[in-house]
Amino acid sequence: MSEHTAGPKLVRPRAAGAGSTSLRQLLRVGEGSGPPELRAVDPRSTPGLPSRDVVGGDPKAWARAQVAELGAELARQQEMLFAEAKQRPESGRRVLIVLQAMDCGGKDGVIKRVAGVMNPLGLHIRAFAPPTVEERRHDFLWRIRRALPAPGYVGVFNRSHYEDVLVARVESLVPERTWRARYDEINAFEAELVGSGVSLVKVMLHISYEEQRERLLARLNDPTKRWKYDPADVDARARWDDYQAAYADALRRCGTLQAPWHVVPADRKWYRDWAVAHLLRETLAELRLSYPDADFDVARERTRLLREAEGEHEVNVN
Amino acid sequence: MSEHTAGPKLVRPRAAGAGSTSLRQLLRVGEGSGPPELRAVDPRSTPGLPSRDVVGGDPKAWARAQVAELGAELARQQEMLFAEAKQRPESGRRVLIVLQAMDCGGKDGVIKRVAGVMNPLGLHIRAFAPPTVEERRHDFLWRIRRALPAPGYVGVFNRSHYEDVLVARVESLVPERTWRARYDEINAFEAELVGSGVSLVKVMLHISYEEQRERLLARLNDPTKRWKYDPADVDARARWDDYQAAYADALRRCGTLQAPWHVVPADRKWYRDWAVAHLLRETLAELRLSYPDADFDVARERTRLLREAEGEHEVNVN
Repeated sequence: MSEHTAGPKLVRPRAAGAGSTSLRQLLRVGEGSGPPELRAVDPRSTPGLPSRDVVGGDPKAWARAQVAELGAELARQQEMLFAEAKQRPESGRRVLIVLQAMDCGGKDGVIKRVAGVMNPLGLHIRAFAPPTVEERRHDFLWRIRRALPAPGYVGVFNRSHYEDVLVARVESLVPERTWRARYDEINAFEAELVGSGVSLVKVMLHISYEEQRERLLARLNDPTKRWKYDPADVDARARWDDYQAAYADALRRCGTLQAPWHVVPADRKWYRDWAVAHLLRETLAELRLSYPDADFDVARERTRLLREAEGEHEVNVN
Repeated sequence: MSEHTAGPKLVRPRAAGAGSTSLRQLLRVGEGSGPPELRAVDPRSTPGLPSRDVVGGDPKAWARAQVAELGAELARQQEMLFAEAKQRPESGRRVLIVLQAMDCGGKDGVIKRVAGVMNPLGLHIRAFAPPTVEERRHDFLWRIRRALPAPGYVGVFNRSHYEDVLVARVESLVPERTWRARYDEINAFEAELVGSGVSLVKVMLHISYEEQRERLLARLNDPTKRWKYDPADVDARARWDDYQAAYADALRRCGTLQAPWHVVPADRKWYRDWAVAHLLRETLAELRLSYPDADFDVARERTRLLREAEGEHEVNVN
């Protein structure tokens, strides 16, 4: 109690053993790391959450306070990213969070609670609805490329090109040979993105079949949430197993070393937000950002402003 | 002290006399209302701010608390706007805040502090830099039209088509007959926007010459702010009077009844944010938003979900 702090202390995620670890490692699926299969991830689990003597008796309140604490750090990192790109756009550095989930998985919640702590000026949020007539006349990556964030921005894709190997596959919107070819096309596209300076954070918010029903019922029962309810979501729910299989394939085939997939157990909203905030923090920290040095003569500029204050310019508004 | 409240009570802007008033009326310039001229507005003034016995000894702290309080209401209104458009996009209803100011006027600050209280999912923020080669090959409104928010969104333009009668005029980027014709073109364009469901909130953040110097010096002196400093801003500053005259003309010629201009005194950042938040609140309140009724059979959907829970669908994840 001798230490004065402005808020709760930021606690790092914890490995199964002891000490702090990287959530990116812990939640990664695909090539050679993390749980081998989607079905091995329990949607109610909380991997990396510190032990009970740190978290206390109310993990939800603890996690919410941690996200608020992380917010200040994320906002600062975001500003440095933005500042760097203003001066050196050719670095191409930017972040792109790709959010995928079954309906009610919490994509909107993550954007509100995690992206919402950052400066909206430096956010680039795009949602992908079913493709329009014009979009369908192009390659499936056409609309994705047009929606990429510029250097300096933190982009968030609410759904993405992965819909083209998920809904397109399960609902047979395209022939099998077409969606089968897309895994390689996606890997080539993402390698290109990474090569051009994009830090990709691919996140699947993983909820259980039972939790989805609870959330759909909650939307039905609350008049202020009914607008989010779409009867078509229940039709998609009837093909739950097919969607899970399609997700498992996408994670396996497109979980590359350069652009790994992370599965965030998402039945507990407070854990979900805490985990995504940490994935973002780790990604930004890896960039080792700093405020750029001035690319002009600071002393000379100061002199210009101070000389003028001595009356070189006569103020005579309008 | 007998009343329990979750936060500070929301206080409405105050007229010069007594009672509460509309900040939109108070700050409006142009046709037949408000101060007739830009130069009549003192950048350090605080029109509409409640009296000292309401605000107390620390108006800055009071205003910041009020903006936080307003935030919850703005976010709720924003959600209803979004919900309505999801169900009835043909209403076309959306909000567009147009922010103009001299450099250091606080456009970024307003976005961070006022837009930042809303859900980033429903925000549509666009900044207009000097036009690109492609943009210059088109009419000046071409890039503006492409950047309009879709129905349901709260859009923010960080600079706008007004640059085409401000910097374009002062720096003689186009012949005089070209920029002179633009006032009418802008009025026709904005009338079309209003007709298609856009609630326009045009705001000039009005700072003084002295305050701009203080803010430029602050950017020079703080290494974490230097990236915002651009020596070209001081060149523009040398033409301060020309810019003020160009602003005064734009406000006068394009301050129409349908799409009025508001001048927000902006030397005091806390007043600026408080005023813009209220302008936004008044605009949203006028729309008389509510959550839409379900456009599906709620009872039937509930039955579908509950029947399935009794085992009609066998869960067998992947």
